[in-house]
Amino acid sequence: MRKDTKGVIFIGDGMGGRPMAELDGTTTLEAQDTPALDRMAREGACGLMDPIAPGIPAGSDTAHMAILGYDPHRYYRGRGPFEAKGVGIDVMPGDVAFRCNFSTVEGRKVVDRRAGRIKEGTDQLTAAIHEQIPTIEDVEIIFEPSVEHRAALVLRGPGLSHEITEVDPHDPGVDYLESRPEEGAEDPEGAAKTARILNEFVRRAHEALDDHPVNEQRREAGEPPANIVLPRGAGTAVDLQPLHERYGLSAAMIVEVDLVRGLGQYLDMDVIHVDGATGGQDTDEIAIARAVVAALESHDFVLANIKCPDLGGHDGDCRAKMEAIAKVDRAVAHLLDNVDFSRTTVMITADHCTPCSVQDHSGDAVPIAFYGRGVRPDDVDSYGERACATGIMGHLRGMEIMDALTNMMGRAEKFGA
Amino acid sequence: MRKDTKGVIFIGDGMGGRPMAELDGTTTLEAQDTPALDRMAREGACGLMDPIAPGIPAGSDTAHMAILGYDPHRYYRGRGPFEAKGVGIDVMPGDVAFRCNFSTVEGRKVVDRRAGRIKEGTDQLTAAIHEQIPTIEDVEIIFEPSVEHRAALVLRGPGLSHEITEVDPHDPGVDYLESRPEEGAEDPEGAAKTARILNEFVRRAHEALDDHPVNEQRREAGEPPANIVLPRGAGTAVDLQPLHERYGLSAAMIVEVDLVRGLGQYLDMDVIHVDGATGGQDTDEIAIARAVVAALESHDFVLANIKCPDLGGHDGDCRAKMEAIAKVDRAVAHLLDNVDFSRTTVMITADHCTPCSVQDHSGDAVPIAFYGRGVRPDDVDSYGERACATGIMGHLRGMEIMDALTNMMGRAEKFGA
Repeated sequence: MRKDTKGVIFIGDGMGGRPMAELDGTTTLEAQDTPALDRMAREGACGLMDPIAPGIPAGSDTAHMAILGYDPHRYYRGRGPFEAKGVGIDVMPGDVAFRCNFSTVEGRKVVDRRAGRIKEGTDQLTAAIHEQIPTIEDVEIIFEPSVEHRAALVLRGPGLSHEITEVDPHDPGVDYLESRPEEGAEDPEGAAKTARILNEFVRRAHEALDDHPVNEQRREAGEPPANIVLPRGAGTAVDLQPLHERYGLSAAMIVEVDLVRGLGQYLDMDVIHVDGATGGQDTDEIAIARAVVAALESHDFVLANIKCPDLGGHDGDCRAKMEAIAKVDRAVAHLLDNVDFSRTTVMITADHCTPCSVQDHSGDAVPIAFYGRGVRPDDVDSYGERACATGIMGHLRGMEIMDALTNMMGRAEKFGA
Repeated sequence: MRKDTKGVIFIGDGMGGRPMAELDGTTTLEAQDTPALDRMAREGACGLMDPIAPGIPAGSDTAHMAILGYDPHRYYRGRGPFEAKGVGIDVMPGDVAFRCNFSTVEGRKVVDRRAGRIKEGTDQLTAAIHEQIPTIEDVEIIFEPSVEHRAALVLRGPGLSHEITEVDPHDPGVDYLESRPEEGAEDPEGAAKTARILNEFVRRAHEALDDHPVNEQRREAGEPPANIVLPRGAGTAVDLQPLHERYGLSAAMIVEVDLVRGLGQYLDMDVIHVDGATGGQDTDEIAIARAVVAALESHDFVLANIKCPDLGGHDGDCRAKMEAIAKVDRAVAHLLDNVDFSRTTVMITADHCTPCSVQDHSGDAVPIAFYGRGVRPDDVDSYGERACATGIMGHLRGMEIMDALTNMMGRAEKFGA
């Protein structure tokens, strides 16, 4: 088995789509000129990928899990653990984790879910929570702030479950909610305990924060006080084998989305920060591509994701999505010029479709192209939803991608004799 | 349901490949002129097959298991039982079986793994083993010689496991090894017992053979003594339903590889010997094809395998592989001329790819073509990796082949009403 070969999965987030009347019945990917992507398809091995399974709209978290070979049906227990990992909490199996906002309430009514996008003072507010709510019953309370109004909460103790309803109402102007066990929860007792503790945490966080000096100052300055913490997206942490152990590949991740970055940390990948990678339309795609090339010097495998195509899809803005796809194409052009393809296989895909006509993720298959070492080129001549459908790779599922990639890298183990 | 139709799976071993620069970017299968295979593709129903799953390099044993419809993930416990069955031992569920070599050692050092490819005398050496080592603890020792230095060992008794490390170091000039339980064995107690008995067998076989008259004579003649038995490839025998029971088809196998022949015997297929089938480049492919035609007179289903394309792949010798593929094509031409296709469906495939650029099995999909009774021809016009990718059968897995074949034979049972 080879030990000196490299692999890359390069993802245009939400880059797949559906035909649009305003684009003469083509998709944004087909309508946009993409010379680098087309070259990868023309000289590579193409196909379509169902991130989870045909027709299942994938989240970014479940899609990336599947593409990295971790079955989300088996291991996904909510986004919370990835979020918590992303803000630096060392989540452990059995923990229940939440994404949180510092918010503004009057009584129970949510006035501002983001507390005026509070920039400063959350460290002091967090210190008050640490001091006043170290535990509830036999459960340890772990709380850490992230950028602006964002934070993460982890409950650590025996018999907890993520099968509880939300506290955050997700809309302003209404009361925040009492968490309850989900109907039909597999562990109703654990869910009841978790909901009780979570409600108690929210109540005591409000007590700790409402009259806090930071919030007194904010009120004086006419800013909404960050006087409560609203958790959402409960998730139970499961034990995932580190990616380098699973595949015997040293692995790096270069992404712009916190949630996916948290997954990378969870899988013990080296999560690499790139200056200029903003996650927006203004992101520096060449900086991202350069970081991939650099990471290949020290790693066997790199997963990279450029976020902006997904934004245009969610906004229903075909032109913005096409510009974002052009960015992905420029990043791919940089790879074409700077990667040693005699020992590197690059796989291009999207984590899911975000059609402008849907303005959300859809369950349509996405085009894939493998390029470089070990590929068997087919007759596909451009990178697009229709063109790739006749490729030699056929229809793969996300869960099969790492096997296909490591096979081309010459690093797949033989099963049998 | 029909009872008078016939089916054939005809396998060019390792016949799939990857494009080679020296063949102008074509594969050996694409580069070689194959009029008979091309006719089967042109008039047949084509596709690609992943023997196990996309990207998984298959062994010959696991690939043939899957193609015959026995899930290797569920039933494969090492090659040993197939090897033992192939040399005529009636392996039973729970047995742990090994392939063995008569070897030459000085002290613990392996001087010749094949004891000078000993031609005669292994019967007498085997008799000594039978006499001196009938049992160890509560385990029966079953040992039978095969051709030259080859033999098989079966341990039969309670609580055994195949999860043990090798005795045979696989390289000459180094000491042979003490078998131990594999790390993380599911049955550590069974593995410990099996390793202990195996080590004792090796020690006592050395005692029984070292001063044996056969070896005294060999030493006098300047030949290396066959003074030890080195087992390898432990496998636990599992209970596999005979193929004729599973599909209601009387079944024959015509192959050149001991390992696959052992699988056929294990599945209670009629394993047919063909004079001139050498397993090498000099094999008589027409004799093999004639044997298939003859076997169809008395059997509903025949699996045949011509070994030589795999050899060129392992040797990285494109020209040899192309000549071997030409042999497969001539055998297929004989089938085209001599089979009654009004009642026979023939399926052509490889058990896996052995690309000359890899010199080992790869996890790439192989081309398939169904020809004759019950097929739906598509637009594919030649038999090759790229050409078959757009065929009407799409991408199948090995496990789905027997269902596809029996459907075309008109011998698949309806599921439902």
